Amino acid sequence: MSWITLIGLFAATCTTLSFLPQVMKTIKTKNTRDISLGMYGLFTVGVLSWLVYGILTADLPIVIANAITILLAGIILILKIKYG
Amino acid sequence: MSWITLIGLFAATCTTLSFLPQVMKTIKTKNTRDISLGMYGLFTVGVLSWLVYGILTADLPIVIANAITILLAGIILILKIKYG
Repeated sequence: MSWITLIGLFAATCTTLSFLPQVMKTIKTKNTRDISLGMYGLFTVGVLSWLVYGILTADLPIVIANAITILLAGIILILKIKYG
Repeated sequence: MSWITLIGLFAATCTTLSFLPQVMKTIKTKNTRDISLGMYGLFTVGVLSWLVYGILTADLPIVIANAITILLAGIILILKIKYG
């Protein structure tokens, strides 16, 4: 595996797992006032589209990264709708 | 351009522009309490890595999408550090 591929995998890991601290914070505090509903709505539509794109192009890293991201971002979106 | 490419471009547009509502909301309210510093710290490192990956692989869509995303996510990160 080339070091360029490693940079890509590092990038994918960071952007995917970055939503985990937000999920944990929001579950703990139950406060979502400062979080933008528009952001998580549009982001979830985008990640779902990336997932479809990854499936159609048979690109496993894109499928895996976006499957995890949609789970985490989806939790934040649901909590935002629930807590307002 | 194939419809699969169009899905990819739609996905990139959504995930990139999704940070704009959060930037606007945060500039307006000056409140960042519910936003996770860990999320935006890790996300910014990830997007910077995606940008490097896009430059090294000469992939223009990845470069453009991540250049815009790092600008928007970077603004949110700076505002989070500023307002706490």
